[in-house]
Amino acid sequence: MSDQQQHRVVVVGAGFGGLFATKALRRVPASVTVINGTSYHLFEPLLYQVATGILSEGEVAPPIREILKRQRNVDLKLGWVTDVDVDERTVLVSAMNGREIRIPYDSLIVAAGARNSYFGNEDFAEFAPSLKNIDDALELRSRIFHAFEMAELEDDPEQRQRWLTFVLIGAGPTGVEMAGQIAELAHRALNGQYHHADLGRTRVILIDAVDRVLPAFDRPLSVAALRKLTRLGVEARLQTRVVDVDADGVEVRTAAGAERIEAYTKIWAAGVAAPELAGRIAAATGAATDRAGRIVVGPDLTVPGHPEIFVVGDLAAGDLPGVAQVAMQGGTYAAGVIRRRLAGRPAPKPFHYFDKGNMATISRFSAVANVGKLHFSGLAGWFMWLAVHLFYLIGFKNKVSALTHWLVSFLGRGRSERIATTQQIQARNALNRLAADRSR
Amino acid sequence: MSDQQQHRVVVVGAGFGGLFATKALRRVPASVTVINGTSYHLFEPLLYQVATGILSEGEVAPPIREILKRQRNVDLKLGWVTDVDVDERTVLVSAMNGREIRIPYDSLIVAAGARNSYFGNEDFAEFAPSLKNIDDALELRSRIFHAFEMAELEDDPEQRQRWLTFVLIGAGPTGVEMAGQIAELAHRALNGQYHHADLGRTRVILIDAVDRVLPAFDRPLSVAALRKLTRLGVEARLQTRVVDVDADGVEVRTAAGAERIEAYTKIWAAGVAAPELAGRIAAATGAATDRAGRIVVGPDLTVPGHPEIFVVGDLAAGDLPGVAQVAMQGGTYAAGVIRRRLAGRPAPKPFHYFDKGNMATISRFSAVANVGKLHFSGLAGWFMWLAVHLFYLIGFKNKVSALTHWLVSFLGRGRSERIATTQQIQARNALNRLAADRSR
Repeated sequence: MSDQQQHRVVVVGAGFGGLFATKALRRVPASVTVINGTSYHLFEPLLYQVATGILSEGEVAPPIREILKRQRNVDLKLGWVTDVDVDERTVLVSAMNGREIRIPYDSLIVAAGARNSYFGNEDFAEFAPSLKNIDDALELRSRIFHAFEMAELEDDPEQRQRWLTFVLIGAGPTGVEMAGQIAELAHRALNGQYHHADLGRTRVILIDAVDRVLPAFDRPLSVAALRKLTRLGVEARLQTRVVDVDADGVEVRTAAGAERIEAYTKIWAAGVAAPELAGRIAAATGAATDRAGRIVVGPDLTVPGHPEIFVVGDLAAGDLPGVAQVAMQGGTYAAGVIRRRLAGRPAPKPFHYFDKGNMATISRFSAVANVGKLHFSGLAGWFMWLAVHLFYLIGFKNKVSALTHWLVSFLGRGRSERIATTQQIQARNALNRLAADRSR
Repeated sequence: MSDQQQHRVVVVGAGFGGLFATKALRRVPASVTVINGTSYHLFEPLLYQVATGILSEGEVAPPIREILKRQRNVDLKLGWVTDVDVDERTVLVSAMNGREIRIPYDSLIVAAGARNSYFGNEDFAEFAPSLKNIDDALELRSRIFHAFEMAELEDDPEQRQRWLTFVLIGAGPTGVEMAGQIAELAHRALNGQYHHADLGRTRVILIDAVDRVLPAFDRPLSVAALRKLTRLGVEARLQTRVVDVDADGVEVRTAAGAERIEAYTKIWAAGVAAPELAGRIAAATGAATDRAGRIVVGPDLTVPGHPEIFVVGDLAAGDLPGVAQVAMQGGTYAAGVIRRRLAGRPAPKPFHYFDKGNMATISRFSAVANVGKLHFSGLAGWFMWLAVHLFYLIGFKNKVSALTHWLVSFLGRGRSERIATTQQIQARNALNRLAADRSR
């Protein structure tokens, strides 16, 4: 097969959108180039379990080459797409070896995802990392488990309480799942392992400006989730805005006034922002963007005036939630449009998201799930969560190994992956000294 | 129980020596303080499997608190012992929170281990890391898997070959096991996953100044190991000295002359050096040290003139090999001496190492084992290796999960843990740019 004669598809990103698009192009007479910044796909919905010691990083981040090894028409290039030349139909890639390369396309599927937004306060990121990639998860794992160790070493009760206070900013699924897991760590998994620090004094504080947790779910499920979180010892601070974040804590504001919460460990799980590439594509194509910088696409997921450019998943503006299912279905749909075009068949119906439901775990044996008009919570929701995640987890061996770890963590109380590397600890200590010097 | 009345044992290090000493002190009327630089114990014999993607870091590094959670007389302090005051009988600890603390002891068990020696060429470490702790293993894992990715991206054949060349310095168990695993990665596990780089061109070069691999084993086993390595595609360069290591390769010298080997990935697995603490203890007690800086102890593992100070494992000088069994038995023996003393019973017989055998894996289904005068190699050796390591691996869940990963890697061809973090890659790129600037 010769590249000159074949239709060339470039897929930007190997998350759910890019991966499902690529897989759906398996039997299409086209050469597919996937461009991704890491060599692994990320199963983002389970990232919080890496950050809290349940799963290993390999279990949620299978190598892309292994997933696609039987698909002959795919080439993976590691790097970052920095720009798109829509007239020349090439993407500009800053490859991982530092070289700039240009890759031509006939069809382009942009599935570059989104990141958390600090709403203009980018300096918060150092003190309150978000949870969007493997590096984040390993850094948060290190911060969380290290905090308990530091509480144990500390003699001063005020300092110890700072180490035992965890602040989650944003009460969407990530904030809720992290809050539930940290509460379980303190009150159950690590119970009895510390002799000086009283882990019963651990505070887990979940903050959001809206008036309920899990605002994307139906209201009764938010109520159920909040009840369960409260029972776990999580303090939900709703209708509360975070106005400042520093090394030692956060400052919040409510209708009643301002307050400071002292906490060494802060996690940012709020807001959505599109990567820089979205702005480049919008500028090059004249496409509109929403407030988060996401690209407004037509009913067939293409950029207006550019039927050869698709935008799928979190990077596309609109009412659809930023969940894996939307990206998967969008990627598959875009591949289907390309397949039909190449076969000379008429365009398919507009993209329609089939909402299979939405779920979030609160703790072991407790989750909430929204399936159409049906609500599930507690144990029923948790079994649905288990079944769905096991089904979608990629690769047989990851299923077996994740299930083993779930048995260990949920039936037992073990957290198998608790490593904080020495490099992480030293880098953080150095940053904290720098921050202290700056504020002096 | 009050600390004032109780005998106070301080254990320095929670490797095999320290952990086995602590466990053997379980029913002894003493309070035990364990001081360790990390919150986890390290199952060092399987570290090479973390570096090559078979096991996750959590599987070889269980939390010390979890191992000891049912032992009531133990307190774990995270930090590094910087000095020992033998007159005051206190150890000086630089705790992980930056504080200096002093911990008094009645008996002291020093089990601080050893590290690799660069024989005065400490600048080699940046280019050829060794494999002694979790940070090392994760860094090497990142370098190895990243090297294949870079070979795939590279167009220049010379550069590509540099990425596909791996140099192991030192042909003891670590060098041999790493060489075997990297060869298996290139020729088996990753086979078919790269389209531009021909992994068949991968070179794995094992260098040592001695005349055989695995010099601590009986000669017929060295011969068997070398034969198997050669069949795997490993090039053994024996009676060869490494005289220089830089970012792009190594310089070696043999009786025939000098040669340069171009290779981006170098791993140091040679030499033994005692940590700084050994010199402090020797200076404080007047004990002799050997060339590697290890402390010369008496037949009961105590420092001459200081019956209250024990040195066990790799830190003790002598003819015993630096393997887990020596440390385990030494730790158990030292605890036994303390128990007898506290019970008013006579001193036990001198420490006698019961050599249960020595083993090293070459590849899947192939290992060599030396048990007394018996030799095992090939599949028989490998099953012995499997049984022994499964037996000694700590904790039921680690046994199950390691066995699962072994099935995946040895029956299948998967490597479940292949993550190179973005932080690791960026830090390395920055270091390489600095090195290039320096050499200009």
